[in-house]
Amino acid sequence: MLREVVVLGVGMHRFGKFPETSLRELAGEAGRRALKDAGVLPRQIQAAYFANALAGLLTGQESIRGQVALREVGVAGVPIVNVENACAGGATAFHQAVLAVGSGSCDVALAVGAEKMFVGDTGRTIQALAASADVELTHDMGLQFTAIYAMRIQKRLASGALTLRHLAEVTVKSHRHGCLNPYAQHQKEVTAEEVLASRPIAGPITLLMCSSVSDGAAAAVVCSAEAARGAPQPLVRVLASELRSGAFRSGAGEELSTAARTVRAAYEQAGVGPEEIDLVECHDATAPGELLYYEDLGFCKPGEAGRLLDEGATTIGGRIPFNPSGGLTSRGHPVGATGLAQIAEAVWQLRGQAGPRQVQGARVALTQNSGGWLEGDSAAGAAHLFAV
Amino acid sequence: MLREVVVLGVGMHRFGKFPETSLRELAGEAGRRALKDAGVLPRQIQAAYFANALAGLLTGQESIRGQVALREVGVAGVPIVNVENACAGGATAFHQAVLAVGSGSCDVALAVGAEKMFVGDTGRTIQALAASADVELTHDMGLQFTAIYAMRIQKRLASGALTLRHLAEVTVKSHRHGCLNPYAQHQKEVTAEEVLASRPIAGPITLLMCSSVSDGAAAAVVCSAEAARGAPQPLVRVLASELRSGAFRSGAGEELSTAARTVRAAYEQAGVGPEEIDLVECHDATAPGELLYYEDLGFCKPGEAGRLLDEGATTIGGRIPFNPSGGLTSRGHPVGATGLAQIAEAVWQLRGQAGPRQVQGARVALTQNSGGWLEGDSAAGAAHLFAV
Repeated sequence: MLREVVVLGVGMHRFGKFPETSLRELAGEAGRRALKDAGVLPRQIQAAYFANALAGLLTGQESIRGQVALREVGVAGVPIVNVENACAGGATAFHQAVLAVGSGSCDVALAVGAEKMFVGDTGRTIQALAASADVELTHDMGLQFTAIYAMRIQKRLASGALTLRHLAEVTVKSHRHGCLNPYAQHQKEVTAEEVLASRPIAGPITLLMCSSVSDGAAAAVVCSAEAARGAPQPLVRVLASELRSGAFRSGAGEELSTAARTVRAAYEQAGVGPEEIDLVECHDATAPGELLYYEDLGFCKPGEAGRLLDEGATTIGGRIPFNPSGGLTSRGHPVGATGLAQIAEAVWQLRGQAGPRQVQGARVALTQNSGGWLEGDSAAGAAHLFAV
Repeated sequence: MLREVVVLGVGMHRFGKFPETSLRELAGEAGRRALKDAGVLPRQIQAAYFANALAGLLTGQESIRGQVALREVGVAGVPIVNVENACAGGATAFHQAVLAVGSGSCDVALAVGAEKMFVGDTGRTIQALAASADVELTHDMGLQFTAIYAMRIQKRLASGALTLRHLAEVTVKSHRHGCLNPYAQHQKEVTAEEVLASRPIAGPITLLMCSSVSDGAAAAVVCSAEAARGAPQPLVRVLASELRSGAFRSGAGEELSTAARTVRAAYEQAGVGPEEIDLVECHDATAPGELLYYEDLGFCKPGEAGRLLDEGATTIGGRIPFNPSGGLTSRGHPVGATGLAQIAEAVWQLRGQAGPRQVQGARVALTQNSGGWLEGDSAAGAAHLFAV
C-alpha cells in the first residue's frame, strides 16, 4: 500500500570509546556522512527521526534530543520525532522514516541513531541500560541482559544442541569479521581458547562473547523511488520494514519469539524467504545469540544451528554470511545506533562497497534489530529487507 | 496524498495529583476509555504510539515505556513506538498514528500520552523539565520555561499592547472554563485581584497564571474512513496533521514562531483559515501565553490580542472560544499527555458532548501543542485541524 522507498545514502561515526566526542558530535558526523553519500543537502530533508536510549539518564538531555543533535547536520524546522525502543531504536527510527516517505507525506527523510555510553562511570551506564526492561518488575532483582542470553544458551547446552565450542567459534567468527570493518570497535582476532578463558560474565557467557559499551552513531537517508533519479550511488530498495512488540500471546500454544514474528512479517511483506537472502545482520548482543537467530529467522531447522556454523555457512564466503560487519559483538553496541549501523552495512554490501568484508554477489539483505525486555522476550523487534 | 483519517474514540484520566496512581495505571485508564469510546477491542489495534517526557528521569523507566504501559490496555505484539517531543509529545504521537493509518500501513492505531509528575519531590520534577531544552546551553543558567514566557509578555506590556489587567482576565477566563471540565485539575473560579496578588513566579507571571505540575493521561483511536463504518460515535475527521521543529531560519528576514509556522502549514494542508474555525485548544503553559497565540495563529492582527479578549470573543459563547477545556492553565499540564488532551477536547466539542462547556454549533476545531525550547523558540510544534 506504501509507495516504493529506496535508501539514498548511509553514514556512520565509528563505534568505540570516544571520551572527547559528545552525543551531538557523534550524531552530526553520521548524519553529515549520510547526506553526503546521498548527494542531498540539509535543506532537502523533509522529516527526521532520531533514536537514542540513554542520554536522558546519562546526560540529562531528554525530550528534544533530535532537535539538539540535528542542528549539527543543519536539519531544523522540519518535523523531527524522537523515538525510543531500547536497542531497537535505530531500526524504529528507520521504520518511521520509511513510513513517512512511503506514505507520500514527504519525499526525503533522515533517520539517525546515536549513543554516548562512555560517560566516565560504566556502572551508571549499566544501570541506565536496565531501564530497557519493565523497571517495576526487574529493578530490585538486578536483571541484566547478558544473564537472559545466558539462560537461553544454557538450555541449548543442556539439550546437547550446542556445545561450548560452538559458543567460542561463533565469537571467533564475529571478531574475524570485525577486523575487516573500519567502523568496528574491536578489530582484533581472538582464538576459541581466549574466548573461553576470558572473564565469566553469566555462565556460559564470557567477556569476549559480549557486545561492549560503546559510543557511536549511524544514519540513513531514504527517499521515494521517483525522487531518487540521478542519485550518486546505486539505489538500494526497501523490500520490507516491519516493527513488532513483545508481551504477545497468540493463545495458540507454542509462541514465536518477538524476533521470529517480526522477521516472518518482513518475509511476508516482501514475498521473500530465507533461501533468497544473501546476508544477514542480526542482533547478536552476545555472540552466541547469533546461533539462536539461525533457527529463529528460518535459516536452519531447530537444533541445527551448530551444524550451520560448523559448515562455515555463516562466515564471509559461506552460503549465508551472518554479521559480516562483525555484528554487535565486534562492531560494538551503542544501543540507539545499532539498528542503523546494521542497515548501513546492508546498504554497503548490496552496493558492493564493503571492501575486504564484501559478500560477493549480494543482492538481498536482512537486518534484524531487537530491543528491551518484557515477559521473557524482546520488548521490540524490527526487521528490514533490502535489495539491489 | 494520505487517505482520510477519522478519530474513532478518545479517553482521558483526569489531570491532577494522584500519588497512588502509577504511570501505567494513568495510561491504562485513558487507553481503555478511548477504546471503549471507539467501540474497538484491544486486539483490533494495529499500531500504537506512546508519548511520555519524564518517566526516564523521574522513575528510571526509559526506552520501552509504551510496551510496559500498554499492557494495561491489552495492547501487545503490534508495532509500539515510544515518541518524545517534550510538551508536544502527545500531539506527536497522534501525528504518527495519523501517518500510520493515512499511509494505509494499518487501519486502526492508538495514540496515548501519559505523565506522572508528582513523585514526592517537586524540585526533581522541575529539574527533569529542564531537560526539554538544550541542556548543554541552558543547564547552568537555570533557564526555566515560565521565565521565557515572562520575557515575551514583558515586551508586550512595555509596548502598551497588553496590560496587567489582560493577563489577569485571560487567567480568570481559563479558570472559569476549567470549572466546567470534570477532567480539569483546577475547578475553582478565581478573580483578577486574586490572580495579580498570587505569588510572583517570573514577573509579570504569577502562580495562578501558570499551568501546574500534574499527573494524567489522554488517548485517541484513529482509523481509516473506510474501516470506520458502523462506529458507535459521530466520526471526527482529521483535516490536517502537521509537525514542525524550531531552530529554523528561513533567511528571509522576519521569522515566524514555530507555532505560527506549524499552524499555517495545517491551514494550508486543510484549505481552512482562522475564519472557519469554531474553537481552539492552544498551548497556554501560562495563561497570558494564550494572548500571544491569538495573534500568532492568525485570529487577530498583531497588537490586537487585548481587544479580542476584551470583546469576549475567546470565551465560551464568544465568536472564537479558546481553551474551552480550561487549557493547560486550569486542566493541568502533565507534559506528555497535554497534546492528546487537547485533541480529546476537540473531539468532544465537535461531537456536541462537552456538556456545560459546549461550544454551540462547533464544526471545525484547531489544536496547537508546543514542546521544548531551542534558540529562543519552541523546539517542537504540532497542529491539528478536525471537523464533523
